Amino acid sequence: MDRGRLESFSDGVFAVAITLLALNLTVEGPGHGTLLHQLGHHWPSFVAYVISFFTIGIIWVNHHVLIANIAVVNRTLLFLNLLLLLVIVAIPFVTATMAAYLTAHGEDAHIAAALYAGTFELMGLAFTGLLEWALHEDERMHQSVPEVARNAARARFYLGQLPYLIAIGVAFASAPASVIITALVAIYYVFERTPARAPAGRGAGV
Amino acid sequence: MDRGRLESFSDGVFAVAITLLALNLTVEGPGHGTLLHQLGHHWPSFVAYVISFFTIGIIWVNHHVLIANIAVVNRTLLFLNLLLLLVIVAIPFVTATMAAYLTAHGEDAHIAAALYAGTFELMGLAFTGLLEWALHEDERMHQSVPEVARNAARARFYLGQLPYLIAIGVAFASAPASVIITALVAIYYVFERTPARAPAGRGAGV
Amino acid sequence: MDRGRLESFSDGVFAVAITLLALNLTVEGPGHGTLLHQLGHHWPSFVAYVISFFTIGIIWVNHHVLIANIAVVNRTLLFLNLLLLLVIVAIPFVTATMAAYLTAHGEDAHIAAALYAGTFELMGLAFTGLLEWALHEDERMHQSVPEVARNAARARFYLGQLPYLIAIGVAFASAPASVIITALVAIYYVFERTPARAPAGRGAGV
Amino acid sequence: MDRGRLESFSDGVFAVAITLLALNLTVEGPGHGTLLHQLGHHWPSFVAYVISFFTIGIIWVNHHVLIANIAVVNRTLLFLNLLLLLVIVAIPFVTATMAAYLTAHGEDAHIAAALYAGTFELMGLAFTGLLEWALHEDERMHQSVPEVARNAARARFYLGQLPYLIAIGVAFASAPASVIITALVAIYYVFERTPARAPAGRGAGV
Repeated sequence: MDRGRLESFSDGVFAVAITLLALNLTVEGPGHGTLLHQLGHHWPSFVAYVISFFTIGIIWVNHHVLIANIAVVNRTLLFLNLLLLLVIVAIPFVTATMAAYLTAHGEDAHIAAALYAGTFELMGLAFTGLLEWALHEDERMHQSVPEVARNAARARFYLGQLPYLIAIGVAFASAPASVIITALVAIYYVFERTPARAPAGRGAGV
Repeated sequence: MDRGRLESFSDGVFAVAITLLALNLTVEGPGHGTLLHQLGHHWPSFVAYVISFFTIGIIWVNHHVLIANIAVVNRTLLFLNLLLLLVIVAIPFVTATMAAYLTAHGEDAHIAAALYAGTFELMGLAFTGLLEWALHEDERMHQSVPEVARNAARARFYLGQLPYLIAIGVAFASAPASVIITALVAIYYVFERTPARAPAGRGAGV
Repeated sequence: MDRGRLESFSDGVFAVAITLLALNLTVEGPGHGTLLHQLGHHWPSFVAYVISFFTIGIIWVNHHVLIANIAVVNRTLLFLNLLLLLVIVAIPFVTATMAAYLTAHGEDAHIAAALYAGTFELMGLAFTGLLEWALHEDERMHQSVPEVARNAARARFYLGQLPYLIAIGVAFASAPASVIITALVAIYYVFERTPARAPAGRGAGV
Repeated sequence: MDRGRLESFSDGVFAVAITLLALNLTVEGPGHGTLLHQLGHHWPSFVAYVISFFTIGIIWVNHHVLIANIAVVNRTLLFLNLLLLLVIVAIPFVTATMAAYLTAHGEDAHIAAALYAGTFELMGLAFTGLLEWALHEDERMHQSVPEVARNAARARFYLGQLPYLIAIGVAFASAPASVIITALVAIYYVFERTPARAPAGRGAGV
């Protein structure tokens, strides 16, 4: 089974999911206050759009790198990949929900922010599934990854999950603080550019 | 005529259809009860999303395997493929309808569940069209499939259609029971991983 | 400039446009009459979905064949292709409009049906642009097409435009009759399978 | 890292964004005045659809040419590309907003038109990022681009940004005039076909 259609289908899903994020950018139209007021009122939608866009973008880059290094495509990999895509496709929904409730009073803002960070955590876990599958047997990668590099990749990856776990907890104290943490993770990975890295290491940089 | 664009177009349609499933994930927003209450109220949408996602995912995997083994791409194949895609593209609609009516009283829940299972049955029939076309003449596959393997593939495939037929019938007694059957089919095929199989056999595993 | 991305971008647009057709499949949900009644009430949406799906599918098949035979990809071709895609992308809109007005009283049904057939006519004209560009200079196709075959392709193509022109006219007498003509065109091309045809001839079979 | 998936993912995003433009084509349906009246009332949506469609189409052609000439795909390029896609994906939103407010009274029309032209200016700036990255080091392009050609490409590109800047300013005097300028830019680039051009020069022709 070749890698081509796995990549082509995944790229399609990533592309549609990242574009559907923009369906949440909207104003009510004439007759609902001035346009500037409406744009101002919807600021959480714009912030949420940028954070989710780059978060999906980052996971796409990592998916790109990991799959490019995989030598074997079997049914298990296809279903682990489906599991990741199941979470990716849900991101526009949790993004819209977070944006709608970020400025709401009471418990709802906390729950919406926790749902948002929690979905990114699930995305990380699903990516872990792919990564662990790839690292599990030597012949699954184009190049054998030594035990040390493998554990380093795992360590960095599991560490990378931590901020999302923290963001889930923080959500119940302050929704905006939780969202800021998810934004910082995206900014960190956009600028992070460690030059010399093993493929699996790069794959781990969620 | 080459296989490339058939796969690329099909992958695009599968990717968009599977992503549009998420448009049905939605809450009413602030002012319609607590967020937790709304999420709870919409549980059929989340269940329906997961079942339909994996069902489309499975048919994509099987489509992938079957097309990869086809040596000849002609106009008939392109239109049999369009017929399958016609059903795939309708799945987000029947998923949303099933989710909206699953907890409704009276006849409507039964009809919505039957519509849901019936669409999956149609999907299976459309896939049968592709499979029968591929098995019909020896030179249509990269490897000749012996008569015995061919009939085994057919037997397994027609058996695989049975649960959806049962789900249609059960729908009129109990909508949730019918949906559970469609979910079990998806779970079965996610975990099913018979190692040694002829390509046509794998193609048949809908 | 290579053909790969032209095909990949076009396939993406075709795939999204054909899938967005299904957004028009919808019921009002619980509390708006029985589900069966709603499904019955929306029958024009289902008919429109099937006609538009196969019409887009047919033009995709023809696009596939024409582009596969083109040897030169230049800026003119890219923009002629954009013109075709501009019409394709508008098809879900005219499909939804036709379905919404097919059973309306008075002038509106006629206009909606004429808009529907007119868009298919525009699609044919845009495809003519591509075809004429390809036939215009010998080196634009992989195989030189003799003058006779060229004119035969043109004749068949321009003849193929006729039904849509007739459907526009008929729309003002009877909207359903106009829609039936567009459906017959789709059915004709699905079943039409002239075996021995020059590439340009197949390209012309819109 | 290969160019294939960068192109495939970008093509997907371009294709979905350009197709989502059509979601803004809509009429209210029966019971809201005659269909002709509704179509007439929504003329800004149709104009906006065509302008945005060709503007995205042009940037896709330029993206196509630029990426085809790039020899190195690294993390920086992937994120510069994401930045461009972030703007592209927002275009259906600003198109819908411009169309909704173009005929509105008062300040709102000006702001909507400025938002529209401003987004195209951002698109140009994001494309500049890609272009400057490509021109910055010789080995990033398949063919070395001489200093003179490089500066010519830059000059033409920065000049090409000017109309959008002017359109932003003009928006505050007259929204329709501003939209006409953005339309003229699209028309100019559709018909512009300077035959002999260096790859970077073509890449610069936004």
